[in-house]
Amino acid sequence: MNRATLQVRTQSPQEILDITPRVQAALADLGLADGAVLIFCPHTTCALTVNEVADPDVRADVSHALYALVPAIPFRHSEGNSPAHLLAALLGPSLLLPVEGGRLCLGTWQGVYLCEFDGPRTRSVWIYPLEGQIRSQ
Amino acid sequence: MNRATLQVRTQSPQEILDITPRVQAALADLGLADGAVLIFCPHTTCALTVNEVADPDVRADVSHALYALVPAIPFRHSEGNSPAHLLAALLGPSLLLPVEGGRLCLGTWQGVYLCEFDGPRTRSVWIYPLEGQIRSQ
Amino acid sequence: MNRATLQVRTQSPQEILDITPRVQAALADLGLADGAVLIFCPHTTCALTVNEVADPDVRADVSHALYALVPAIPFRHSEGNSPAHLLAALLGPSLLLPVEGGRLCLGTWQGVYLCEFDGPRTRSVWIYPLEGQIRSQ
Repeated sequence: MNRATLQVRTQSPQEILDITPRVQAALADLGLADGAVLIFCPHTTCALTVNEVADPDVRADVSHALYALVPAIPFRHSEGNSPAHLLAALLGPSLLLPVEGGRLCLGTWQGVYLCEFDGPRTRSVWIYPLEGQIRSQ
Repeated sequence: MNRATLQVRTQSPQEILDITPRVQAALADLGLADGAVLIFCPHTTCALTVNEVADPDVRADVSHALYALVPAIPFRHSEGNSPAHLLAALLGPSLLLPVEGGRLCLGTWQGVYLCEFDGPRTRSVWIYPLEGQIRSQ
Repeated sequence: MNRATLQVRTQSPQEILDITPRVQAALADLGLADGAVLIFCPHTTCALTVNEVADPDVRADVSHALYALVPAIPFRHSEGNSPAHLLAALLGPSLLLPVEGGRLCLGTWQGVYLCEFDGPRTRSVWIYPLEGQIRSQ
């Protein structure tokens, strides 16, 4: 099985990291030219999404707003990190992104976010090339 | 078309069920060894996500927190279940998960959640094998 | 690369549009009979999801509720549209939907939503056919 694994070290309890360059480098290692890439986060208090990476204030705003979303209700889970589980479930564990000419095919301002909700930790991100699925004309 | 369908009976207005063993069994029925699996929920008040299944308190906490997220605004939809539509739209209708050696390839603590927001009902989950898409080396 | 692009004109700062017929028409143009379709939104203040399209009140309710979700915290991003970035990150940029017999294979009440959070603008939606991935028996 052809899988690339990124190890991402987070530095704070909650933060958003731009991992776009590392995903792009993994595509080159995997030799994926055209198709799609499945990016999977095997954790339950960490998630992936896509948004603007040009202005770091956007990442900070989104990170703060996500935590502010968490309702002030009593939680049962004894580890005390139910807010992190909630946010990971909301954002979801995976992305499927198009690849053309060996490059992630994103919009002008888009990049791939790793969203840490229970750090600092070392997180894994699994990257699978789905090759030859998108027909060339 | 090779599709497996699960029928899932929910018991409460809102609950989260761990359907991981049933998805795994469907993979065996479908004969998928390596690739990815598309899991699709054809409902608008029910959704799928991935999170911790080891401690049932996590599912309870996430379920309660999702409902607590719903803002207290007036809704127009005459069926009265707009909160369920909101939550289903937020979580999304589908998952794409990697499969290796005939097994769902998840993180240690991850499982597949069916999130019921307008039960009890009998829900369908469609499972499609995407075979041979992930290159073997 | 075989990609169809929709141009979608939104009319309001925030709204949800049913783009299901346009996605279906693109599948016909692309000649996709069986497989899956990757629908990708290359914007950071706009997103895609699936929900009920039969009653327009559902779209209105979901749109209003999403904005009501945004927490009342100070945002740093100078463009002033951090709520739109938050909501786009929450909903995510892409959908993977099954296709059978040339038709989007959705539940009875489901349709594809384009969710505008920072309009009015002209938005692009990229549509990629993933053909032959779902085995026929």
